Amino acid sequence: MSTQVVLLGHGGGGRLMAELIERVFLPRLGSPELARGDDSAVLPYPGGRLAFTTDSFVVEPVEFPGGDIGRLAVCGTVNDLAAGGAVPRHLSAAFILEEGLPLDLLGRLVASMAATAREAGVRIVAGDTKVVPHGKADRIFITTSGVGPIPDGIAVSGRNARPGDAVLCSGALGDHGMAVMVAREGLGFAGCIESDVAPLNGLVQTLHALGPALHVLRDPTRGGAAAALNEIAAQSGVAIRIEEGAVPVRDPVRVACELLGMDPLYVANEGKMLAIVAPEAADAALAAWRAHPLGREAVRLGEVLEGPAGRVTVRTAFGTHRVLDRPLGEQLPRIC
Amino acid sequence: MSTQVVLLGHGGGGRLMAELIERVFLPRLGSPELARGDDSAVLPYPGGRLAFTTDSFVVEPVEFPGGDIGRLAVCGTVNDLAAGGAVPRHLSAAFILEEGLPLDLLGRLVASMAATAREAGVRIVAGDTKVVPHGKADRIFITTSGVGPIPDGIAVSGRNARPGDAVLCSGALGDHGMAVMVAREGLGFAGCIESDVAPLNGLVQTLHALGPALHVLRDPTRGGAAAALNEIAAQSGVAIRIEEGAVPVRDPVRVACELLGMDPLYVANEGKMLAIVAPEAADAALAAWRAHPLGREAVRLGEVLEGPAGRVTVRTAFGTHRVLDRPLGEQLPRIC
Repeated sequence: MSTQVVLLGHGGGGRLMAELIERVFLPRLGSPELARGDDSAVLPYPGGRLAFTTDSFVVEPVEFPGGDIGRLAVCGTVNDLAAGGAVPRHLSAAFILEEGLPLDLLGRLVASMAATAREAGVRIVAGDTKVVPHGKADRIFITTSGVGPIPDGIAVSGRNARPGDAVLCSGALGDHGMAVMVAREGLGFAGCIESDVAPLNGLVQTLHALGPALHVLRDPTRGGAAAALNEIAAQSGVAIRIEEGAVPVRDPVRVACELLGMDPLYVANEGKMLAIVAPEAADAALAAWRAHPLGREAVRLGEVLEGPAGRVTVRTAFGTHRVLDRPLGEQLPRIC
Repeated sequence: MSTQVVLLGHGGGGRLMAELIERVFLPRLGSPELARGDDSAVLPYPGGRLAFTTDSFVVEPVEFPGGDIGRLAVCGTVNDLAAGGAVPRHLSAAFILEEGLPLDLLGRLVASMAATAREAGVRIVAGDTKVVPHGKADRIFITTSGVGPIPDGIAVSGRNARPGDAVLCSGALGDHGMAVMVAREGLGFAGCIESDVAPLNGLVQTLHALGPALHVLRDPTRGGAAAALNEIAAQSGVAIRIEEGAVPVRDPVRVACELLGMDPLYVANEGKMLAIVAPEAADAALAAWRAHPLGREAVRLGEVLEGPAGRVTVRTAFGTHRVLDRPLGEQLPRIC
């Protein structure tokens, strides 16, 4: 890390962020749970394993087509717990408010959190509020944490991908990132692109029946599917190959990405899940997802290969291959 | 609440904050754990009860005599769990960083968190990092959450104070708030006043042997002992009377408070605990605290009275009484 200061890209879910974690956080905190690099920690408690996770949300604008920072803050933590194989139960919410924030906006955002929590079947049981002077924050930042039990027989981790496994994706990619981008920049796609932000615990739990055939779950947020697949390939020491023709992208998102020179595989999602399952379980998993309202467009995206370890490739319609690099930072800051 | 926007005082731990919680958060989130108003939520899990809590830290300056925002973030959550009667075990840490923050400062603060976690016997097992552009945050905000089991036989809550109970305080009041104030304003007390920020779980666990005689635990942070005692009096529907002569305040803090026109009972602490115990357990509790390095100056501060419900009074050396009102906001913004 040649820089001496924090850069925007350090928060982007890409290589810069990985460097920050590896060079600043891990050597000092030295906790095996952090070093695993999964979306939530697995804690051994007397009554069974608990998942525990946290995320701060700083999205700008705070309200965008399809959602707002409140819905995002609940879904982000619910989905991280779900990606840990857990049944999300209890959330905390800590607010950092900028002096002068309109109370009616705050009320709307809290109502949105409450509605999303009901939708997800979780409860917000602990909270905190801090206020900083005008100009020392940007309206509202929300940090949620969550806990939930991991059912017996479920053991997912980014380390569990095995050669031959199938890579599944629960639906179209890039909606959240492009919706926020369009709202922030006032681009002309308003009305066409909505964030996919949604609680995915119900969708994910349809895969719990697979038991040990369910190897990896990850929600492709910052850095998009490209960052998530690269993380998994590195954690598991495998290669992953996806089929370009299988990547689900809605037309308005595809057009917006082309105009802006972006690749939907690198754009953040907040309502999609990636699953890696044993090959013999792939059809059952896909069928289970497609029967769920949030998984109707689920696809088999590709497969896990022996190596080279950490390499993710895309096979094009022409049969050629290109490397899908880990992004450096995030193309769109403050996306979540 | 006549204002239409968020004020600094809404984050101060006083009446304005209580109004914000009662009018904006509780009606929308409607969770019984939040409505209890304790420092941590009590969750029923198969292997026993778990405490769960969260706090954001926005203190300015981020380094001050006796501590820094990293130590504060670990102690704040450890102490909230301890005040819930729990044994703190696992913490999460979510960072909101301002672009341009020096990496060596970040490294120092993370090292301080790690050292404090070791001191407290807890592990930081989950984390998150977001970066916002320069000018959209103030250097670094840290949100910690924590979980830990509540031993069988312990049932503390702000609702459990009973007439006749003894009110204990683990040591001198006002050190943290005045240390931050002096550092921030460049007052001439440098070197005399240090923050008391410390993990109190070891101290508090010496009271677990009291079992059901241990009624209330609360760490008097924002709004100081005055806010904490008023909250307890309101939650329990009792009055509390403290003896002015018993209030422990170090000389430099007393002098600084006098010069600045502040009352140490309203100044924040980060290394002190209040306990309310059955009268027959008071001597044993005080002895247990005084035998612990962080409780050597523990005192019996006063007692719980039948009523009027919610009233806190101070009996002066002359035998007169004054009402110790709940503060409106916080005299010192961004104290934690």
